[in-house]
Amino acid sequence: MKNLCLLGATGSIGTQVLEIIREKNIYNLKSISFGKNIKLGKKIIEEFQPEYVSVLSEADMVNLQNEYPKIKFGCGEDSLITAATYAPGTLVNALVGMVGVKPTIAAIKKGMRILLANKETLVVAGDIINRLLQEHETELIPIDSEHSALFQCLQSGSKKEVNRLIITASGGAFRDRTRSELKDVSVVEALRHPNWEMGPKITVDSATMVNKGLEVIEAHYLFEIDYERIETIIHPESIIHGMVEYNDKSIIAQLSLPDMRLPIQYALMYPQKLSNPKFRSLDLAELSTLTFKKMDFERFPALGMAYQAGKAGGLMPAVFNAANEVAVSLFLKGKIKFLEIEDIIEEALESFENQANPTLEEILAADSKVRTCILEKYEVK
Amino acid sequence: MKNLCLLGATGSIGTQVLEIIREKNIYNLKSISFGKNIKLGKKIIEEFQPEYVSVLSEADMVNLQNEYPKIKFGCGEDSLITAATYAPGTLVNALVGMVGVKPTIAAIKKGMRILLANKETLVVAGDIINRLLQEHETELIPIDSEHSALFQCLQSGSKKEVNRLIITASGGAFRDRTRSELKDVSVVEALRHPNWEMGPKITVDSATMVNKGLEVIEAHYLFEIDYERIETIIHPESIIHGMVEYNDKSIIAQLSLPDMRLPIQYALMYPQKLSNPKFRSLDLAELSTLTFKKMDFERFPALGMAYQAGKAGGLMPAVFNAANEVAVSLFLKGKIKFLEIEDIIEEALESFENQANPTLEEILAADSKVRTCILEKYEVK
Repeated sequence: MKNLCLLGATGSIGTQVLEIIREKNIYNLKSISFGKNIKLGKKIIEEFQPEYVSVLSEADMVNLQNEYPKIKFGCGEDSLITAATYAPGTLVNALVGMVGVKPTIAAIKKGMRILLANKETLVVAGDIINRLLQEHETELIPIDSEHSALFQCLQSGSKKEVNRLIITASGGAFRDRTRSELKDVSVVEALRHPNWEMGPKITVDSATMVNKGLEVIEAHYLFEIDYERIETIIHPESIIHGMVEYNDKSIIAQLSLPDMRLPIQYALMYPQKLSNPKFRSLDLAELSTLTFKKMDFERFPALGMAYQAGKAGGLMPAVFNAANEVAVSLFLKGKIKFLEIEDIIEEALESFENQANPTLEEILAADSKVRTCILEKYEVK
Repeated sequence: MKNLCLLGATGSIGTQVLEIIREKNIYNLKSISFGKNIKLGKKIIEEFQPEYVSVLSEADMVNLQNEYPKIKFGCGEDSLITAATYAPGTLVNALVGMVGVKPTIAAIKKGMRILLANKETLVVAGDIINRLLQEHETELIPIDSEHSALFQCLQSGSKKEVNRLIITASGGAFRDRTRSELKDVSVVEALRHPNWEMGPKITVDSATMVNKGLEVIEAHYLFEIDYERIETIIHPESIIHGMVEYNDKSIIAQLSLPDMRLPIQYALMYPQKLSNPKFRSLDLAELSTLTFKKMDFERFPALGMAYQAGKAGGLMPAVFNAANEVAVSLFLKGKIKFLEIEDIIEEALESFENQANPTLEEILAADSKVRTCILEKYEVK
């Protein structure tokens, strides 16, 4: 049995990770973290008997410690690092947000294999992560469906033979609307994703195409490919998740039904592609049609901003990410309109002074600063 | 420079092989064969200066020998074996028909790498070829676009993890016609392939779906996969050439514009995927739609016969192939109607007695016998 540390155990990715390790009995769940969903967290504790559990609040920690005296509990950010590195082996980082960055770094420093679902890790600290992965001779495998697709397609050739990566985008909830039709869209409308069921933040990010922008930045670091060679294309059916065009213009693509358990199992079992009775075959004849549309950067300006932030490097990917995160939370609270998300990101990128080769502390400081500035301006409105 | 022996130099595959080796200067063309196209053959001799040339007729041999005294010439089937094995290194077998089988075998026995465009080699003698490849520790790389696609997709995983191979079929010239509309189709109509420009025999084979049947049998031997795990699907655009579904239901597919130079270059340069200024990128957004339709075995009964022959093994794939070849030539000469091609194949499969583990001689004898029987019956009509 291999050791597994799992951050974000009660979330959508976390529960699917547990489903896979329940089915494929090769991992021993040593530690977990969870946040507000105490009920589900307790179920997981009882089923998997982890040795260490990190929770959000001190009150929860105390209560749980009383209930499960044999298990160690911790709370707060430091305990996430303890949970991430509790036992040598594999870390699945399925945390949402900036809070995921430090645990990844701590685990890499211990030489652990990283299975990454936390977007922020690579987006804000891609250079640092890549340097550490090399230094500590360990590997990072993506869990995101698009990056898992690219990762699988890259097995067919060598990185230096890649002509371009093509990431598909469903187009999100508003793909058939013009910009002028977006002025007064409601939160409820923004949360209706056509193909995937995901959390509210990522669903809004799909509608603004920020999600694809973050994926482009992640792909840049993950596969060490220039932004000029990373393309996006609208593919409403979400069947082809990613494609690699090699130098000979031959494209290798990965297709499947939209089911996050596939990339999760692939990452957990890599390099094996194991059968799983719960996974359904894709029937292309039944589906009958796959469609594609050129990405429209006028319609989705936030994607262009992501490329701009990515190419600038330094602090800008963190600025892009922080501005978006705050803007989306303001939108979800009804404090700003949908199109203002883009305005806020643009303003942040324009006003923030960049810096080359920032340290993690400088990145985290920039992140805080951007958030504070935006909140000061918009929360009081 | 590596040595290259090329059989079928003046044909469609042969000339594209020459185009690639002209562009990528890593092969030394040591020997060639060609048939009736003496004019083009002479051009190739003058440009590439091969040391040995095999031609069809003695008269051509004598004439060419006078014209090029420094080059060795031969004629007839034995000279094809001399050409195939003239120098250690790589053989490209782009011969059409049964005549291609013996040269492949001779080259494998010399430990040469085989790049195979000759369908008959694997269809009629797949078991023998696989045994010899293992014995002589050498490899066979397919040049056909579908098999090249599968070969590329299989780089992403291991053979034992394959759930199914999916071979795409354009549907051929008559894909939109019902069977009753096929009764009186002309040769000219049958030769209009929607996507690929190919020779008359293979274009008719596309219309009857025999071509896909031969590809299924080839794939069975090439990748050592059960027939139950080899599927075909109608894909009119011919953009996805082949797909591999792994056990985890993740499909890896190969896409490109229909251009035979891609699989040819891939085979010649394997495992490298090199750029080539002449190859065009596939623009999926411009293409906009890929469509798929379930294979219809009622509409294309010859495909079912191919599976039947393949599963029976022994002599039956050779019987299937021979019956089809004679039937197509009779159709092209106007001696039979289009739908009679299927009748002839069916009759041959029903009347021929099978034999397990046949020798090459027995296979070739069966081939001759089938041809003679059919010709006797139909030529005199």
